[in-house]
Amino acid sequence: RRSQMGISFTDPGVSMDLLRVVLQPYISADIKAVMDKYMPLLQKASQNVRDNVGNEVDAERLVREIGCSAIEHAKEMYQEPSKSSTAQVKASHKRFKQMNNDNS
Amino acid sequence: RRSQMGISFTDPGVSMDLLRVVLQPYISADIKAVMDKYMPLLQKASQNVRDNVGNEVDAERLVREIGCSAIEHAKEMYQEPSKSSTAQVKASHKRFKQMNNDNS
Repeated sequence: RRSQMGISFTDPGVSMDLLRVVLQPYISADIKAVMDKYMPLLQKASQNVRDNVGNEVDAERLVREIGCSAIEHAKEMYQEPSKSSTAQVKASHKRFKQMNNDNS
Repeated sequence: RRSQMGISFTDPGVSMDLLRVVLQPYISADIKAVMDKYMPLLQKASQNVRDNVGNEVDAERLVREIGCSAIEHAKEMYQEPSKSSTAQVKASHKRFKQMNNDNS
C-alpha cells in the first residue's frame, strides 16, 4: 500500500493529515471570521502607531504580524498539559508589572 | 522611555504586541470554539486509525497534532500576497490526484 511517492496510507500521521487538508478551507474560513472581529481594533492601533512614530511604519504589515502571532499563540490550547496556558498568562502579567514598575 | 529591561515602548512591534497580549485570551477562546466544532470528527478519525493500526497509536496525541497543524495553516491568511492560499490549495489537490492515480 505504498504509492510511487513512497507515502504509506496506513501511517497514522499521513491519514490524519489527509483529513486535515479536506477540512482546512472550512477551518481557515472560520478562523478568519474570528480574526475579522478584532481587525478594526488592530488596524486602529497600527494607525495610531504610524501617526505617533512616523510614516515609515508599515501599518498593514504590523496588522498581519500581530494577526499571525495571535493565531500562533492560540495553538497553545493543543500543547502538552505540562505547558499550561494559565502559567504563560501569569508570566505575561508578571512582565507587564515589571515594565510598569521600571517606568514609574 | 526605556525600561530597565531595555524595551522601548515606542517600538511599533512592542506596542502592538502589548495589545495582542491583552486580546489573546479572547482570540484564543474564539479559535478554540472553532476547533471544538471539528473535534468530534477529528476524534472519530483518530479512533478509526487506532482501531485499524493498533493500540500503540496515541489517538489523543494525533488529535492534538492535527488541531495544531490546522491552526498553523490558518496563518496563511496573513502571508504576503505572493504566497496565495489559492495556489497552496491547488497544490494540495494535485498531490491528492497523484496519490490516487498511483494507487489505482
